[in-house]
Amino acid sequence: MNPAPHQTRLIALDWGTSSLRAYRLGAEGQRLELRALPWGVMQLPDAGDGENAGFEAAFEQACGDWLQAAPGTPVIAAGMVGSRQGWCEAPYLEVPLAVGQIGGSLASLRNRHGQLIHIVPGLMENSQLPNVMRGEETQVVGVLSLHAQQGQAADILIGLPGTHSKWVQIRHAETQNEVRHFDTFMTGEVYAALCGHTILGRGMVAGDNDTGDAQRSFERGLQVAQTAAGQAGVLSTIFSTRTLGLTGVLDGTGQREYLSGLLIGHEIAALRGMLQAQQRLPAQVMLVGEAGLCERYAQALRAYGFGKIEVAQQATERGLWQLALSAGLLHT
Amino acid sequence: MNPAPHQTRLIALDWGTSSLRAYRLGAEGQRLELRALPWGVMQLPDAGDGENAGFEAAFEQACGDWLQAAPGTPVIAAGMVGSRQGWCEAPYLEVPLAVGQIGGSLASLRNRHGQLIHIVPGLMENSQLPNVMRGEETQVVGVLSLHAQQGQAADILIGLPGTHSKWVQIRHAETQNEVRHFDTFMTGEVYAALCGHTILGRGMVAGDNDTGDAQRSFERGLQVAQTAAGQAGVLSTIFSTRTLGLTGVLDGTGQREYLSGLLIGHEIAALRGMLQAQQRLPAQVMLVGEAGLCERYAQALRAYGFGKIEVAQQATERGLWQLALSAGLLHT
Repeated sequence: MNPAPHQTRLIALDWGTSSLRAYRLGAEGQRLELRALPWGVMQLPDAGDGENAGFEAAFEQACGDWLQAAPGTPVIAAGMVGSRQGWCEAPYLEVPLAVGQIGGSLASLRNRHGQLIHIVPGLMENSQLPNVMRGEETQVVGVLSLHAQQGQAADILIGLPGTHSKWVQIRHAETQNEVRHFDTFMTGEVYAALCGHTILGRGMVAGDNDTGDAQRSFERGLQVAQTAAGQAGVLSTIFSTRTLGLTGVLDGTGQREYLSGLLIGHEIAALRGMLQAQQRLPAQVMLVGEAGLCERYAQALRAYGFGKIEVAQQATERGLWQLALSAGLLHT
Repeated sequence: MNPAPHQTRLIALDWGTSSLRAYRLGAEGQRLELRALPWGVMQLPDAGDGENAGFEAAFEQACGDWLQAAPGTPVIAAGMVGSRQGWCEAPYLEVPLAVGQIGGSLASLRNRHGQLIHIVPGLMENSQLPNVMRGEETQVVGVLSLHAQQGQAADILIGLPGTHSKWVQIRHAETQNEVRHFDTFMTGEVYAALCGHTILGRGMVAGDNDTGDAQRSFERGLQVAQTAAGQAGVLSTIFSTRTLGLTGVLDGTGQREYLSGLLIGHEIAALRGMLQAQQRLPAQVMLVGEAGLCERYAQALRAYGFGKIEVAQQATERGLWQLALSAGLLHT
């Protein structure tokens, strides 16, 4: 028996650079079904030469049957699908802005079957060092809806660790939340490049990172940024990954874990320094991301004196639901 | 006509990871001949299975004929050839140490023809974040001998920019120079990894870096570390390479130059911060390295308020000569 198709209320796509996740959501926004496909914006299926043929084919695979079973279901998508290289550009909204504005600024396109697809815009902060995000704004919306459900309302910091981690400052003013400022750290991508393409990777072994030794190596790395030697900055301190191997202090697995801790520690130390300078140390930090990575960041945040830390679940689908709601897509 | 072989006084090898340079030096240490070979310690010629066959063959190509023409000429070598993966390990000497000690601590081996080859040890500073160098100690000796010839005697800072740049603090006490402390920055290798293996490289074009635009992009990057936004640290500021491309401020060549300036600026800012904290800001900085790179670093040093900056020439061969002299290899 098919799942009851009449229950489908929203089709929500999380469409990034390297993957596409499709959610079929029910009457209360609950997840009925999830599909994960490899069709990121930069690696679409080969579907001939037609304009946007790759996007069309990926979309079809992701949710064509859902739409056939439940025609007229609204569709919303977030992530790099809305970038200049995406299916339809949804121009960046400028920070600072009220979070509620995002849902009112969706772009839209019709696919070859006439299906309307709404696209969430990214955010840009055009300061001296401009900053952009695409996809994370949706997770921010999701975290805030969870936060509101819990009856909480205060300035918070939302952390989204990953290839590029984002730290988003939310100011709660009267009844609305505002994205005040955000920072990007390329920690995850730098870590991968250092392990894979510099001398630091040569001594490394991909071992069990769940042992006490591995954990101690991670913690050792985490502390570096707050020592006197850490003042040399990350371009210098990373070299100790190798020299602590040469001196026999760290084995191959240890070097890998140490470098992870060292980079995350530098990130959190810099973040804390900036928040302090801005007098915006938050009462609470909400983390969104892969569970193991969130645990590493939670540990780092504690080491650098951050208070209440919570990991938010299902932020993407919650965010897409919330944006569809505020865009009026779920009224009928 | 052959060059007069009786003039050969020393054969000096600069034998690193990826290349081998052989110098034939005359009675006063002047260069008579230079050979550059691709036989680095990690890429030796294929010469069969014999123990050290690759080293033997590379050595033969580098200076076998020189030794035949001038038998008994002393041979000295510096660099990774003395590492654990080298031909003969010359254990690290511990910093701080008097510079004069290095020449008294050479390791040695005999090759298959019985030729004695002296190997210069590297330096290690075994602090919380240990530091090592191999090859640069020889350039330091060379710079100091040049410096002494000029009748100068004071604390100086020696900078050796490259894949891994080294900053060596020299304390001049009475009649001797001491290596007091040194730092390593992996700036060059990080730059290559970021350009080649992260999203930052995607928008880059290898263009003419000698234009006014390219120079302005480099300078823009150089300044970042001393702005408020630069306090976010290099893991964060590098992302602006991409966003300044997205916002149309930097073109493809500009992004490449900007990132170069940004990284070097962070290096020099951190270096200056540490020297200030240690109350060891030097009256003079001597740079050793590839000319174009030294110019970039000189510009960075000026931007961050360092005073007298000089670029030293032929530091490696001067250093090898000086070490052979202090080891007593040139007495006869």
